[in-house]
Formats: sequence, structure tokens, C-alpha cells
Amino acid sequence: MSPAATRSASELTATARAARDASIPAPYRLPKGFSVPKNATLIVEGSGLLSAAELALIDLDATGLAAAIKERACTSVQATTAYLKAAALAQQATNCLVEMFADEALARAAALDAAQAAGEPLGALHGVPVSIKDHIDVEGHDSPSGFLGLVGRMVAASDAHMVSVLRAAGAVFYCKTTNPQSLMHLETEGYLGVTSCPYNTDLTAGGSSGGEGALIGMRGSPFGIGTDIGGSVRSPAAACGIYSFKPSVGRLPYGGCNVPIAPAGCEAILGSHGPMGRSARDMEMYMRLVAASEPWRVDPTLHVKPWREVASMQRKLRVGVLRDDGVVLPVAPIRRALETAVDKLKAAGDFEILEYTPFKSAENWDIISKLYWLDNGRLVYEHIGATGEPVVPLTNWIIQQAGSVERTKDETYAIVARRDAFRSELAKYWHEQGVDVVLTPVGPSPAPQHGTAKYWNYTSYWNLANYPAAVFPTGLFVDPAVDKEDAGFTPRNGKEKYVRDTYNADVSVGAPLCLQVVGYLGYEEETLDALKRIDAVVNA
Amino acid sequence: MSPAATRSASELTATARAARDASIPAPYRLPKGFSVPKNATLIVEGSGLLSAAELALIDLDATGLAAAIKERACTSVQATTAYLKAAALAQQATNCLVEMFADEALARAAALDAAQAAGEPLGALHGVPVSIKDHIDVEGHDSPSGFLGLVGRMVAASDAHMVSVLRAAGAVFYCKTTNPQSLMHLETEGYLGVTSCPYNTDLTAGGSSGGEGALIGMRGSPFGIGTDIGGSVRSPAAACGIYSFKPSVGRLPYGGCNVPIAPAGCEAILGSHGPMGRSARDMEMYMRLVAASEPWRVDPTLHVKPWREVASMQRKLRVGVLRDDGVVLPVAPIRRALETAVDKLKAAGDFEILEYTPFKSAENWDIISKLYWLDNGRLVYEHIGATGEPVVPLTNWIIQQAGSVERTKDETYAIVARRDAFRSELAKYWHEQGVDVVLTPVGPSPAPQHGTAKYWNYTSYWNLANYPAAVFPTGLFVDPAVDKEDAGFTPRNGKEKYVRDTYNADVSVGAPLCLQVVGYLGYEEETLDALKRIDAVVNA
Repeated sequence: MSPAATRSASELTATARAARDASIPAPYRLPKGFSVPKNATLIVEGSGLLSAAELALIDLDATGLAAAIKERACTSVQATTAYLKAAALAQQATNCLVEMFADEALARAAALDAAQAAGEPLGALHGVPVSIKDHIDVEGHDSPSGFLGLVGRMVAASDAHMVSVLRAAGAVFYCKTTNPQSLMHLETEGYLGVTSCPYNTDLTAGGSSGGEGALIGMRGSPFGIGTDIGGSVRSPAAACGIYSFKPSVGRLPYGGCNVPIAPAGCEAILGSHGPMGRSARDMEMYMRLVAASEPWRVDPTLHVKPWREVASMQRKLRVGVLRDDGVVLPVAPIRRALETAVDKLKAAGDFEILEYTPFKSAENWDIISKLYWLDNGRLVYEHIGATGEPVVPLTNWIIQQAGSVERTKDETYAIVARRDAFRSELAKYWHEQGVDVVLTPVGPSPAPQHGTAKYWNYTSYWNLANYPAAVFPTGLFVDPAVDKEDAGFTPRNGKEKYVRDTYNADVSVGAPLCLQVVGYLGYEEETLDALKRIDAVVNA
Repeated sequence: MSPAATRSASELTATARAARDASIPAPYRLPKGFSVPKNATLIVEGSGLLSAAELALIDLDATGLAAAIKERACTSVQATTAYLKAAALAQQATNCLVEMFADEALARAAALDAAQAAGEPLGALHGVPVSIKDHIDVEGHDSPSGFLGLVGRMVAASDAHMVSVLRAAGAVFYCKTTNPQSLMHLETEGYLGVTSCPYNTDLTAGGSSGGEGALIGMRGSPFGIGTDIGGSVRSPAAACGIYSFKPSVGRLPYGGCNVPIAPAGCEAILGSHGPMGRSARDMEMYMRLVAASEPWRVDPTLHVKPWREVASMQRKLRVGVLRDDGVVLPVAPIRRALETAVDKLKAAGDFEILEYTPFKSAENWDIISKLYWLDNGRLVYEHIGATGEPVVPLTNWIIQQAGSVERTKDETYAIVARRDAFRSELAKYWHEQGVDVVLTPVGPSPAPQHGTAKYWNYTSYWNLANYPAAVFPTGLFVDPAVDKEDAGFTPRNGKEKYVRDTYNADVSVGAPLCLQVVGYLGYEEETLDALKRIDAVVNA
């Protein structure tokens, strides 16, 4: 009989949490009774755990840190130590880690420092700490993928494909980060509890790569890897004030990502992994790194597509602004962030601003929500049932969005055909708009209050479309003085009402405000080029 | 009540055949009692229908003909007239056409000549006749796709995607070519009868793009478009002594190809269209032409992938030779053609010849044959049943290969997962072999006798793999003096026995001998570069 069957869910949960807590080195633990402020980012400096030199290191992005190590401004051991400390604080403040493995990381960092000292060639990320989302395999570490019943049963025999690329480039792995029960929330809640927004712990860190979001937002990682099939690298980036990028499926390898919620061989809707980090340039750095590894030689699902250099445009960048998807108008701070960005772009002169009107938003959700759960969540409930762990309400909610019915083979074909028809129609519509990219909210609100992230369409729309989409912070945060909503607003529908009802400027104070840049299918190069240009103006 | 329901299948068949025959202009019809020789290619000169100038025109490939028109060595009307005559002869000799539309073609050619005279810019195929396989939409023409019940019901409102690219490049459409009942034979037999090999009418023209093969083999077309999900541009190219190319899925658009045998939304195994023609350079010309049209802006299933220039290798091309797939050893003339080619490559010095041993051939067929018929041929039999047209034996045979059972959704997922596992394993295996391309037979025999093409694995293997594969003629033909088989051979299995039993050098006299060049998944550029290099040596 398996251990899971002989012990209660609450015992197993306590054991899993204790093991995770024990993986945080004792010197990095906050003193008993330490009170984490609502804006948890303050404890990085406030705790006194990091030296001034270490604080400077955790301000760098991956590209900057790699350069510092290469130029011997610091060692990998120093950088790794700084990030271990910051990650330990991030965990204690936001509950963002599944495991920390400090000893392994420091040994790896020391070996990389020795290799550098010996004059060996350096990879693009030589000595740089990189964080990895729970359900992605890192050799020797567990990947329970959000299910209590899988704890201890998913120890990876080898690295996931992209982890092997990062390792070959010299990355130092030191932790794995939380994802929610079912992997399918735009929040992060499961047997390890709730992961919170670093800037306001009353709010969610987003999901499903919420651990990455909170960790990077806390400066506990310079760079990390998440996955996205409905917004899962973008929602946490937006909630936590960082950068992320979801390419079209086929560009980045997915091998070694455990998805125990869908049967092998089901390809109706596919996710991609994506980078999460601290700068726009890191998003591009990562895409170049993976393309240079020729991942298609290992993974036959990938496009054979070296990274292309983007030619100079000889004209203004055409930015379509999508302000409202026609179903849920974003709340005041999101509208403010978008208007502020548009004003800056207009003033900069290099951008032609167009209005992009939404195309079939509601139909998009009707299709993709069904594609997510063609089997009505059967595998999710099997994993939950294995231990009897409590069902997180958002787990039931998202599965019920698909209509609470298992689809037959012919029904599955029909929904996939609707997907293809939507994609064809959107391609035509997009090109008729004459835009290079679309600038749009990442969601209808800043980081939602825990348990309320129920409107996916600003991100999931681009998963069904399969268009590349990047998130960047605007440098703005929720300010109750200017971001109160009009109480007299009449919602157009129940979804809009729910978003309004669950937003409160006073509760959301300090939440970061981010935006999304979307490019055409397969145009990863152009999308990231546009991201860099827009980011440079908005964050000038 | 529909006409189909009120008339017998034999009446409908007679009507369809008569309509097709009537589409051949009367002046191009052979006199009553004219006896087509077994080597039907002889009638092109022998009929006296074409002038010496016209005979010279039909010797050109598409690139050469486009250059001749551009340089005003001939007009499009002259070229089109020559090809209409040759195509009429091809039809009467090999039964390769579904429809000819001479008036429309000549009007189009005249308009293109006028445009050229007016100094308008010329497309890459300005004025060049191009033939199109039946099931691909050409505006205003029927696409019955091999089913009697669909005759007259599939008149295209617009061009298929690749037809529109060709039309924009200046192509002149003048005929549509036969494909078999079910679209899924490596022969071409249906309500219009049997399409034969131009070099030996006792043999099949191959299939399913057998009409293209026979037409181009007869010099009745400089260039045509077929489709391939198991060998359907390669089998007829091999049978008819011409060139063809099947790229990986995702490179060439498929929109406007009618596939009434599979439900929309089923993506377990996908086909590609591909060029068929008279030279290796035309295969590349076509791939460049389509890529330059940026077809991915219209079709979201395509990879965003401009045509890449192949860098100079600085080393020999590594050619793996696959002589025997481990299930069916090719018969004597195929072995002779392969050995002859290998000897020439060795002598040329620019090639490193390696042995490529087969990998899971039998498993490949087990997987792909099931992927073809997840619904046990339900739609095929519905179309056949609509008129009661006779079931061609190969239709039953290929469907039964899948096990004569309709697969459930979970069984479908399991077979798709086997497909993905095979592809991953093969990618690893391929790279371990250290080959750039594989040189291999196109099938275990030259053009089979009618009704006997039952071994697909030399082509279909590369469909499940999804690797690009090109066919080229070796300049050799079956010669009973040297191509007799050893009667004492002990077959390893029933499939090998069947191929031996149905091959007879005396019957197959004069059949062309072709070979196949296969490259890695998505390496269309490198594969065609290798094709050109190998073809230049073999056909020096």
C-alpha cells in the first residue's frame, strides 16, 4: 500500500510543507515573530540579511549578471549566495517555493567559478542562478506539479529539454517554484498554500507560474522559466511587476514539462514554456539562446527556425491599442496604465497608434475553455482523489467553464475545427487592421484578491490564437487616490460585474501595473523587438 | 431528390467519363482505331500532332519555359497550345485527366502575353502552364476528389491557397488530374478508370497523384501540384520517371485541398501538397515561390519560415544509404538503380557514403495505418454508398490495414502518443547516424502492375516521421536482360513475398527507375540542395 493511502491529506500536507520549509537554510530564516509588511518587497533590504554588495547583485537582470561574472566583478558563488538569501526571504514573504537546494547550487557555482578561473569557455549564462517552475523537470528534484498525491513520486531522472539548454549555458539551479493545484489557475494555490503578490500580500501572485512571479518580483531570482497555456507566464508577471514572454507553440521546447492533467496524445490545445525576468532584453537573450541550441534536432514538435534578425523598419511601428475586449472593460488603474503608455508612445514619435477593436472575444473563451477540459477534468480529480486533498475552488471553477461534460471524439473534432476556423479568421482580421503589434492589458485588473482571478480572456485569447505575447511593467502601481472606480458603472454582463465587484483600489494599493505586447503568429523576433522599443519609451 | 439518387452508378460513371472526354478539344483527339503502344511516351512524337517547335517547348522544365517566355523565345499562347496538345495525348494514352479547359487556358495565356507586351511586371511563372490534382480547388472547376458521388458538387468558388500563389505568379491552369477513389491508393483508379504509367501502360502510374505523374511523365505538363500523406507525390513520380518533393507539414499551405475522407478537426496525421515536375531546380523554385508569398499570413497552420539560403558545407555531403527497410527488400532493378547511383556518388568524390540501417519500419506502418483510419473509413464508405459506385479493391485493402475498427477517443490519443514517441526516437536515431540525407528507394519495386501497390513503407515512413523527401529519376529503366529476380529467394514475410510475386521483369520492361532523397524534419532547404547535388552526379 502506498504511503499516500495510509496517511491523511492533512498529514501529507504538513509533511510536504515541513520538508519545503526545512530546505530553506537556517541562517536565511527570518526570526520568529518577524512581521512581513503588506509590501513584502521591503524586507529584502529591511531584513538586513543581504550585504550592500549582495543587494547590488540582485538588482541585475540575467544579462547584466552574466556580464558581471564574465568580467569578474563578482563570482558565481557570490551571485548564487545573494540570490539564495533573497529567495529565502521571498519564500517566507510570499510562499513561492516548492524546494530550495542551496548546497547543490553553491557546489555548482563553485565548479563554474573554477572552470572560469581555468580559462574554460563560458556559456551565455555562466554562473547565473535560474529558477524553475515546479512541474518542469530538474534532474534529481521532485516535480509534483501542484498535486499532493504526486509529492515524492516525480523525482526527475534527467533535465527537461530547456533546463538542459540552460544548464549547458552555465545556469545555476537553486530552487523550484510553486504552481497551483491542477496547473490551471491564474493564481497559485495548492497543498503548499497560497502564493502572494510581493507588492501586496493581500493579492494573488497570479498563476499558474505564480511562484516564479513572486520570486522574481521579490528579486529572489534574476530569471526563471514558467509555462503558459492560458496566461500562466503573463498573469504572474503582471501581478508581480516583471517581464515575461509566451511565444507561439513550436518555438520553445516543452519536453520534460509534466502535465498530469491531460492525456498523452491530446494536442487540441498546447502550451509553451516561456521566460520570466527583469528586463526586455533578457526575453530576447533567452530566445536566442534556445534557438542557437537547435532544439528541433531533439524535439520533432518544434519548428526548424533559427532566430532571425529584425530588419530596420524604415517606418513607424504600428501599435494597435486594444482597450476593451468587448466583454470586460479593465478597471481604472489598468486603463490609466494603458493611457499613460499610449501618451508616451505618441509623444515619442516613432509609433503610429491605431485603435484595435476586439474580434470574437467571447467565442474565443467558449472554444479554448472546452479545449482545456475535453475530458471534464477526469485526470485532475483522479490526482486529487488519490489523497483526498481539498479541492481548491478555482479548480472546480475552471473545469466547469468547459460545460461539465466529457466530449466524445466527434465532439472533440468539432471543437478543434472551431479552433482552426477562429485562427484563420483572426489571421485575416489581424492583417486587415494593419498593425505590427497590439498593446493591451494583461488582464482586466491588477493582481486580483485571492480566489477571484476568473477572467482569463486578455491572456488566453492569445493562446487560442497562438500569437506571441510579452508582458512588461509600466513603472506604475495602484494608487487609491486616482484609481477608484465609479460605483455607478453598469456592467454589461456578469463577468464584468464580477471583476468590478472584486476590485477595490484601497485593497489593491501598491499592486504593479503591467501591459502586454502581442505580435502575429510566429513573429517572435518582431514581437520582442517591439517590446524593447515600447518598453524603452514607457520606462524611460 | 438528387440526380445521384435517381440514376445508377453506371449511368453516372458513363456521364462523367463522357463529360471528361468531351473536354478534350476535338482537333487533339487521336483518330479512331489509333493503337497506343505499351510505351505511350512514343505517341507524343508519333502522333504528329505537335510541330517541331512545340516538341521543343514541351521538353522544357517550368524554369526553362518561364525563361523562354520572358525572353520572348515563345509566347504563353504557344506554350499553352503545345501543352494542351501533349496533355490531350497523355489523357488518351494514360487516362490521367479529370477535366481539360483549353479555352479558359488560352484566354488566360493571351491575356498574359498582352500584359507582357504592355511591359507589366512578370511573375516567376508568367505564362507557364501548370497542372493541378483533382482534389485541389481551382476556381470555377469541379473537385470530386475521386468519388463519383461528388461529381458536379464540388465546383470551387475560389482557388486553393497554393493555386492562388501560382496564379499570382502568372501560371496558366488548363487541366485537372486524376486521383483514386478514397484518395488513399499508391495507384490511381476510380470512376474514371485506371491511370497508367506512360512508359508501360500495363503498370500503374502510381498514386494518389497518379494523374499528375502520368501527365508530366508524358510531357503533358511542365509542372504540377499533388498532395502526399503516404507517398502520393513520390509514388507517381517514381512510377512515371519525374521529380517530386514532399516537405514537412507546416511548410506549404494545404488550404483548398478537399479531403472528404477525414473529419475536420482530426489532426492525427496530416498531409502536405508538393510540387511535381521535370527538374530538381523546379522543386526549389517552387518552394522559394511559395515562401516568398508569406503563406503563413493567411494560413495559421504554417510555420513562419522564409526560405533559407544553404551555407556552403566545407565538407563532403554525408549520404546514408538505406538499401532495405528490414521488411521488404527492393526487387532487382531498384537495387541496381541504387547501386549505380551510389557508385557514381563515390566516384564523384564530394560525397561521404554511409550505411543507414532501418529503424522500426514495421512499427511505423502499424502506427500510421491506424492514424489514417481512426474512423475505420466511415466517410469513404458514405461517399461510395451515395451512388453505389463499385468499391475499388485497394480502397478496402488500405482501410483494413488499420484493423477494421473505429477507435475511441482514448485509443486515438494512445496512437497519437505512439506517433510522437516514434518521432522523438527517430530524431535521436537519425542524428546518431551522422547523415545529412538518406538515399533510398521510393518503393520496393518499379511501377507495380495494376492493383498490386500494397507496400507503402518506403514513402509513408517519412510521412509519419514528417521528414522532407524528394524523388528523382536515375535515367535507368527496367531491363529484363539484367533485372530478373532469383526464383529461389526465400521471402522473410508475406509482404516481401507479395512484392516478389507481383514483380516480373518482362512485364515491367521500360518502367523508369527513380530514387528518393530524405532530409531531416524541417530541413527543406538542405534536402533540396542535396537533391540537386546528387541529381547532378547521377544524371550527369
